[in-house]
Amino acid sequence: MSAWERWFAEQREERERAGLQRALRPRARDEHLIDLAGNDYLGLSAHPEVRRAAAGAALGWGAGAGASRLVTGTTELHAELERELAEFTGQRAALVLSTGYHANLSAVTALAGKDALIVSDAHVHASLIDAARLSRASIEVVGHNDVSAVRAALADTDRRAIVLAESVFSVLGDAAPLAELAAVCAEHDALLLVDEAHGLGVLGPGGRGLVHALGLAGHPNVVVTATLSKALGAMGGAVLGSPALIDHLTNRARPFIFDTALAPAAVAGAQAALRQLRAAPELPGEIHRRAARLADRLVVPRSAGAVLSVPMPSPGVALAAQAKALAEGVRVGCFRPPSVPDGVSRLRITAQAGLDAPSWNRAAEVLARIIDEHRSEQ
Amino acid sequence: MSAWERWFAEQREERERAGLQRALRPRARDEHLIDLAGNDYLGLSAHPEVRRAAAGAALGWGAGAGASRLVTGTTELHAELERELAEFTGQRAALVLSTGYHANLSAVTALAGKDALIVSDAHVHASLIDAARLSRASIEVVGHNDVSAVRAALADTDRRAIVLAESVFSVLGDAAPLAELAAVCAEHDALLLVDEAHGLGVLGPGGRGLVHALGLAGHPNVVVTATLSKALGAMGGAVLGSPALIDHLTNRARPFIFDTALAPAAVAGAQAALRQLRAAPELPGEIHRRAARLADRLVVPRSAGAVLSVPMPSPGVALAAQAKALAEGVRVGCFRPPSVPDGVSRLRITAQAGLDAPSWNRAAEVLARIIDEHRSEQ
Repeated sequence: MSAWERWFAEQREERERAGLQRALRPRARDEHLIDLAGNDYLGLSAHPEVRRAAAGAALGWGAGAGASRLVTGTTELHAELERELAEFTGQRAALVLSTGYHANLSAVTALAGKDALIVSDAHVHASLIDAARLSRASIEVVGHNDVSAVRAALADTDRRAIVLAESVFSVLGDAAPLAELAAVCAEHDALLLVDEAHGLGVLGPGGRGLVHALGLAGHPNVVVTATLSKALGAMGGAVLGSPALIDHLTNRARPFIFDTALAPAAVAGAQAALRQLRAAPELPGEIHRRAARLADRLVVPRSAGAVLSVPMPSPGVALAAQAKALAEGVRVGCFRPPSVPDGVSRLRITAQAGLDAPSWNRAAEVLARIIDEHRSEQ
Repeated sequence: MSAWERWFAEQREERERAGLQRALRPRARDEHLIDLAGNDYLGLSAHPEVRRAAAGAALGWGAGAGASRLVTGTTELHAELERELAEFTGQRAALVLSTGYHANLSAVTALAGKDALIVSDAHVHASLIDAARLSRASIEVVGHNDVSAVRAALADTDRRAIVLAESVFSVLGDAAPLAELAAVCAEHDALLLVDEAHGLGVLGPGGRGLVHALGLAGHPNVVVTATLSKALGAMGGAVLGSPALIDHLTNRARPFIFDTALAPAAVAGAQAALRQLRAAPELPGEIHRRAARLADRLVVPRSAGAVLSVPMPSPGVALAAQAKALAEGVRVGCFRPPSVPDGVSRLRITAQAGLDAPSWNRAAEVLARIIDEHRSEQ
């Protein structure tokens, strides 16, 4: 056994002892489960128009874009989607990238450098944490949703500063105090970067996101990132802001410049989903009604978005509850370290507006029963 | 004007003065150009079977995977592609990711940490440079293809060490001395990570890559990364190696864990392209015949892969030559700082096996004439 094989084996034993070993479980096309684990909050990934648009783009443009956006990867499809995303979110410009991870890495590294300060909420997504590290900026992590800590950090520096937050946080499902954060940033000439991964298609009138709902779209101190893989049901990421910002990223963001463009099928799928959402602005409301009812039934705090977070006593108990729900036809997420900001294992249940009411109600009953049984266990 | 708007404007002025300002130019679906700029070396992105497979997956599975691989994003399609990729490249296991960038970030950050040493060839791709930075390992950059410098760096440390190289380098098109590097790594218990982005589908018998051709597939000290967006004509990335390596990445690689799975259309497109390649093992040979003839005609060094690199006297002259070729219906790449390792601007021409012979010959004539005219200019 080589030194590396020994190291892999030791690392795996450690994970197994801690109950943290994970494995991929491929799903079949027709698994007949109610899926409350994924982030396809509006069910648009499977919408017939969205599927057809994605398929049509693969047939018409080919399976891939063939090169980076700056070489020949940019198609008219990409440009169209960028215009429509910007318009929908009330922004002046947009840039489409291959993943939300690429969007966050690109925005943060192109805006911040060694001479900058990044002030980061303690609960931001892994991609923002990695982006901050990669930027080589100084990093100050502040308490979750602690506006005064952000103010203090900004008052204390004369560097170019960027504040990182999510409009609705991915694990706990709570919202950030964006209006206050934007005001503090404007006061100190800092940029507020808001990840709307779980906000786009979910929050605000018509699902235009929390930044739009608060009148912050177009604010000179606010930059938005988003994904096309959650409520928009496809794949990819986006940065939204001023034309000068987008021009800057196009020229300077390495994870944008050195990456093959998003495949046409994903671009067209996201575009069709966005059009479905525009045509049915009432759709996101159903997420909130379902999420609120289920939160009340489970006696957990209501969520700002689609994600209900149900703390469980241990990784093992969380896994057992998840397995029991699966046996009854309902798939939920199970977040364990290192995917949780506070080390507490949780079931993660997403309110899905795309499900018919009988399926949703049945799933909610199954989950309420199983969670009641398990969460008093030690 | 806010401080940030001023900063964007200053940065842009700097780029314009240096001739480095770039903009996206969306292409139409029917542009009737001969494309020698992209990386779709075998023309498989547009192959009817590949298009149909991608479209069929979008129709059958939906436009997106809906969640990360560890939640519900892994489909049987992903697992199938992983088996076929591993088998094709002679490896025991594979992991599919959303982009080649994600593959490199994942492999390097999960293998290296603060306690590790990364020894990196000076010409590796931006994604490997970013991956090394993100890992927080100590980094030693060695001269391009300098095996003795790698040996000296490894002899000088007792840390866990990872050596970064590409099988064929993306800008200059030359190959790495992989057999020597693997031997040095084995001697010192280091891992050699080989990015086959431009090798898969291009190098070795049947396009199985340089690692396979050299008998290094399955070598305990060799890890391979690759992309599905170049010769395989789709989108995505992969890591190939031992099952223990893949298990380690599945559990530890943040850009894998916290990313929505690759969309089904891209997975199916790459799979169909791989099957086309298996059915036509003679296809990659045409890349090399075309690349060699054109290199001889242009009096530039022959390429190990598909990419011909033609140094030009300045960014401005390179752009002018590129524009002239485009006006005659031939698209080539133009690499300027910061996309070149040595600051020399170049035309980048890819030999495309997917083109019919008359189109290829016409393009080669156009390019030879234009390059002859321009490259003596100052």
